[in-house]
Amino acid sequence: MIRTSIIGGSGYTGGELLRLLIPHPKVDVIQVTARKKLGEYVYQTHPNLRKQTALKFCSPDKLQPVDVLFLALPHGHAQHHIAQYAEISEHIIDLSADFRLRDADFYQQWYGEAHAAPDWLNKFVYGLPELYRAELGSAKFVSGVGCNATASNLALLPLIRAKLLDTSKPVIIELKVGSSEGGAAVNPGSHHPERSNTVRTYAPYGHRHTAEVVQEMGLDDVSLTMTSVGLVRGALATAHGYVKDGVVLKDLWKAYRAVSAENPFLRVVKERRGIYRVPEPKILAGSNYADLGFDLDRATGHVISICAIDNLMKGASGSAIQAMNLMLGFEETLGLEFMGLHPI
Amino acid sequence: MIRTSIIGGSGYTGGELLRLLIPHPKVDVIQVTARKKLGEYVYQTHPNLRKQTALKFCSPDKLQPVDVLFLALPHGHAQHHIAQYAEISEHIIDLSADFRLRDADFYQQWYGEAHAAPDWLNKFVYGLPELYRAELGSAKFVSGVGCNATASNLALLPLIRAKLLDTSKPVIIELKVGSSEGGAAVNPGSHHPERSNTVRTYAPYGHRHTAEVVQEMGLDDVSLTMTSVGLVRGALATAHGYVKDGVVLKDLWKAYRAVSAENPFLRVVKERRGIYRVPEPKILAGSNYADLGFDLDRATGHVISICAIDNLMKGASGSAIQAMNLMLGFEETLGLEFMGLHPI
Amino acid sequence: MIRTSIIGGSGYTGGELLRLLIPHPKVDVIQVTARKKLGEYVYQTHPNLRKQTALKFCSPDKLQPVDVLFLALPHGHAQHHIAQYAEISEHIIDLSADFRLRDADFYQQWYGEAHAAPDWLNKFVYGLPELYRAELGSAKFVSGVGCNATASNLALLPLIRAKLLDTSKPVIIELKVGSSEGGAAVNPGSHHPERSNTVRTYAPYGHRHTAEVVQEMGLDDVSLTMTSVGLVRGALATAHGYVKDGVVLKDLWKAYRAVSAENPFLRVVKERRGIYRVPEPKILAGSNYADLGFDLDRATGHVISICAIDNLMKGASGSAIQAMNLMLGFEETLGLEFMGLHPI
Amino acid sequence: MIRTSIIGGSGYTGGELLRLLIPHPKVDVIQVTARKKLGEYVYQTHPNLRKQTALKFCSPDKLQPVDVLFLALPHGHAQHHIAQYAEISEHIIDLSADFRLRDADFYQQWYGEAHAAPDWLNKFVYGLPELYRAELGSAKFVSGVGCNATASNLALLPLIRAKLLDTSKPVIIELKVGSSEGGAAVNPGSHHPERSNTVRTYAPYGHRHTAEVVQEMGLDDVSLTMTSVGLVRGALATAHGYVKDGVVLKDLWKAYRAVSAENPFLRVVKERRGIYRVPEPKILAGSNYADLGFDLDRATGHVISICAIDNLMKGASGSAIQAMNLMLGFEETLGLEFMGLHPI
Repeated sequence: MIRTSIIGGSGYTGGELLRLLIPHPKVDVIQVTARKKLGEYVYQTHPNLRKQTALKFCSPDKLQPVDVLFLALPHGHAQHHIAQYAEISEHIIDLSADFRLRDADFYQQWYGEAHAAPDWLNKFVYGLPELYRAELGSAKFVSGVGCNATASNLALLPLIRAKLLDTSKPVIIELKVGSSEGGAAVNPGSHHPERSNTVRTYAPYGHRHTAEVVQEMGLDDVSLTMTSVGLVRGALATAHGYVKDGVVLKDLWKAYRAVSAENPFLRVVKERRGIYRVPEPKILAGSNYADLGFDLDRATGHVISICAIDNLMKGASGSAIQAMNLMLGFEETLGLEFMGLHPI
Repeated sequence: MIRTSIIGGSGYTGGELLRLLIPHPKVDVIQVTARKKLGEYVYQTHPNLRKQTALKFCSPDKLQPVDVLFLALPHGHAQHHIAQYAEISEHIIDLSADFRLRDADFYQQWYGEAHAAPDWLNKFVYGLPELYRAELGSAKFVSGVGCNATASNLALLPLIRAKLLDTSKPVIIELKVGSSEGGAAVNPGSHHPERSNTVRTYAPYGHRHTAEVVQEMGLDDVSLTMTSVGLVRGALATAHGYVKDGVVLKDLWKAYRAVSAENPFLRVVKERRGIYRVPEPKILAGSNYADLGFDLDRATGHVISICAIDNLMKGASGSAIQAMNLMLGFEETLGLEFMGLHPI
Repeated sequence: MIRTSIIGGSGYTGGELLRLLIPHPKVDVIQVTARKKLGEYVYQTHPNLRKQTALKFCSPDKLQPVDVLFLALPHGHAQHHIAQYAEISEHIIDLSADFRLRDADFYQQWYGEAHAAPDWLNKFVYGLPELYRAELGSAKFVSGVGCNATASNLALLPLIRAKLLDTSKPVIIELKVGSSEGGAAVNPGSHHPERSNTVRTYAPYGHRHTAEVVQEMGLDDVSLTMTSVGLVRGALATAHGYVKDGVVLKDLWKAYRAVSAENPFLRVVKERRGIYRVPEPKILAGSNYADLGFDLDRATGHVISICAIDNLMKGASGSAIQAMNLMLGFEETLGLEFMGLHPI
Repeated sequence: MIRTSIIGGSGYTGGELLRLLIPHPKVDVIQVTARKKLGEYVYQTHPNLRKQTALKFCSPDKLQPVDVLFLALPHGHAQHHIAQYAEISEHIIDLSADFRLRDADFYQQWYGEAHAAPDWLNKFVYGLPELYRAELGSAKFVSGVGCNATASNLALLPLIRAKLLDTSKPVIIELKVGSSEGGAAVNPGSHHPERSNTVRTYAPYGHRHTAEVVQEMGLDDVSLTMTSVGLVRGALATAHGYVKDGVVLKDLWKAYRAVSAENPFLRVVKERRGIYRVPEPKILAGSNYADLGFDLDRATGHVISICAIDNLMKGASGSAIQAMNLMLGFEETLGLEFMGLHPI
């Protein structure tokens, strides 16, 4: 059994890590920190952990050495303390945005300030196993992934891998996301009477996760438009682009089936009958799957590629556990077997 | 045109008063206060008022004399300032709980502290027109009503009026309520990811609105159980009691039809076909109706009486406007004609 | 008082027409038809009409002459009976898709079969007052509007009117829509456990309402992508295009303010504070407003234009009543004053 | 590995059985029947099973012998075919209502017709392990449980076991339930625009599951009131009764802790802090837990006992798998480890 701890365990990302790690057959969770909840049982914050664990939140000042340390803190923290954390754990997985971008200038361009630990940027592997499976196998430091970036990157992956996309044309990605993306901290806009029934395009362009799509897909002209919808868990990316001349639907089938065959958590959903013919995030709640769909308007070459995920799983904690499995040589899918619910 | 102002216009009750008063054909709204939003347009807080009014929030320190003053502040405020408000307005409608109970000891028993203006308690008429239509016609001071008390009182009204209820037996009222009952101020439990999909019995007994049911229905043994459900606007009261020996369904029909005939905003809903056979709050959103239903288990005498309302309308601002109409000699239903939406 | 009847009054469009016409100060509703509900009270189907009307559904075989006849039947019916309906009413408003397109070939291209009454196509005025206010003043025959087409057309209107859009580039419009768009007839996909929490891109391209955008905006390369989201009433269109060289944000402000000033039901929503900074359909439930927002990525010229509507109002019955008001010389906004609810 | 089949696998109960049985470490699922979906992959109906199984729906006419046969058909079927099913399987678990009641007259009283196989009634053990753990260990035939009966019985269990309840007084149980209780077949009332936001007391008294509470709790005067609320999965029972003289809160704590200690899937939820202080069904979605809470009004002896379950799990398929584990000597919790999600 390897030893792990979680820094910042009271948020939704931290809670989801606990849900996955507590029953994980190869892992013990030693400590979970939350400064504002010292001494409280973790199940008082995450009620699904009741009768699963006797863990209490402890202070980050009393961390013990572990094999893997998960950082689940707000953006901007990890870059100031990474050296210190590296002293107590050989492996670190930082779920914040601090180490996702490899270039310090690019980081500054998107996050508006200089990175506090630019020398560390290149030590980190971007934590999306579908992109860096091999690298994760020998990584010591892994970044988390942006949930919206992940839905976008996985929507584009088959098109990029198979070189079907006309990358000279703009790519527009529309994301529809649930309220858990905003995190566990309450704010006026998250008040239930205000947030309920919402269809709110809160970021027409310029969302920070765009940077991860630019970096990972190698696209210059890509835009993310964010719309909050009536849902708690889940994100759907609908990517619009144009295929190269001559590309037909059969080429798309081949490309999507290829990435699905290579990756245990990618599935192609494109049915002709039934209710669930296209990817939908709701049936992925709690699961680590990313479901992919696509269509092509032959008249114009307009390709629509769709990816549905649970933002707290494949978009955050699920990918982190998957990365941990790869780093430590475990079965990639270990502890990530939950298949989701229907109906829900 | 009469002149009105609203103290505390940034909450949901204040917003609903504005929605009703701005198009009211006999009323001008002169001022609306909100200390924390001085100088902001009211439509920035209540987006449905956009293009309806150029009113801005002003300070309560600069109130001008009016004909009717609405107090829409948190409980505990009005009782400390009532004398001062009475100087600038001949008519006052206080939507808080401060002047609902007529007895100072009873107030202290339920609210846990002595009333600050006990001499004023008897000057107020309880603002439910279905109970005090005549008195409201000559009232100067009117209290608002508790939303849960109103659903409960109206559920019981036909049984009490027609003396069908065995009042020696306990009455248990189960209320299922939407999130707007908690008001416009955000709190950890109102965070959308936490409050969504909730079925939470947050007050098994002892809710303060119980006092208004005890007072108005003259019942000794009555209990309110509060459960939050997945809804923004609306409250449903399901009251359980026992009828006197010999009471049959026909007696209930007669009693319910009688109160419906006497009151423009009460309707009996008891259909044998269609989807909407029983009272439902959702189709009342924005309307001032209270829909009543009932059933009787002849084997045991168990009577179930149901009342659905929009908690912000019949349960608060709608009843207040209805009371204002009566106080000023306007048509009782004026400005309250919106019939609700279907589907919704 | 003018006399009106509704053919097909049991659907959501018919119900909304009734909600608007029954309290309309210039109109009497004489008859409402619904073959499957003969003799039933209309309030048994539309529960918000309880205590508002004693109308019952009657047979379409017994229609009396009226001043205005509303056709609210499924697509494909009106074109077969238009001559017969024209005999009993001087004015006809057909809310189906049958007379929206002016060109019979274009109709066949999008609807897959020849039009049954091609000679009538040019007698109809497209029923969007924001496009055809003057023509509607003298029209005898008016078509309804597609709800998704309306959200799209109004999103594009300021850009087209002010000639800001580079029409040589594709326009991609993403629509997020509520479940009432599917109509009142139940189907396996509308079953509550399946439809709840849905984010389902059910039509990546090729939706029939696209034809109305092509026709009315004069665009060749425009695409509608349809996604069902967790909402009952409401549609949000997010349109993506590219502005001509040199166009800046100030030009957009001017264009949007201009269309808002000319049209009583258009509002610009672009705030820097508060929760409701952008157009949102939920606060428009029951109202006839279309709220418009926009943003511009100066680096790329990518313009995002947003329009929120209630699909049953501005997207169907509300626009139809607005058109009726114009046809008959009434105040354009008559009977359409409901401002929407907050919170909801 | 034992062999199992499911008769009636296209409904929600059948789907949930598949979700639990497919990854169950001791079980193989051999066949799943669904007459209307012959030859279709089960994942086309239950999309969470995609990539989990290659099973297709087969005809019930071609059933092979198995160790355990699950019947997941509408009520009224199993009693006509039980002898035939018993020929192909030594163990049968029937999830319908056909074999829940032990007395044929009592069955007729509640179900309105004579039982077709009265001789079989006594061969069945009622499938709630919290009541019949020992009997299930040697059972061959097990009935399913009514979901509302289960929430009610588990709410009452601590009070009945500890003899705290004054059984001479009526017990009133209010159930708030999600839309999945209605099953997978669509009907006009389950249409999303109609069912959304619902708070509908569709059965004030007389619900058939009452019979199971009468039988299992030994209560004469108990009533179930059913209210549909805005939720897909989940049921909350709030039971109202009166304690015997002298019973205090400490006695209740002892009684509830006792049943929790004896049963792996019962938990007591009664917290003084945090958001989740009382049982709530939403965090149980997919889990087999039943969460219990309680409170006592000392002034009147009114006890409120609360039980939250996932109606498809503890209320149906979860209890059935738990019963199977006991019948076959497996660990009681095997395959039922999923702990539920937060947030959701």
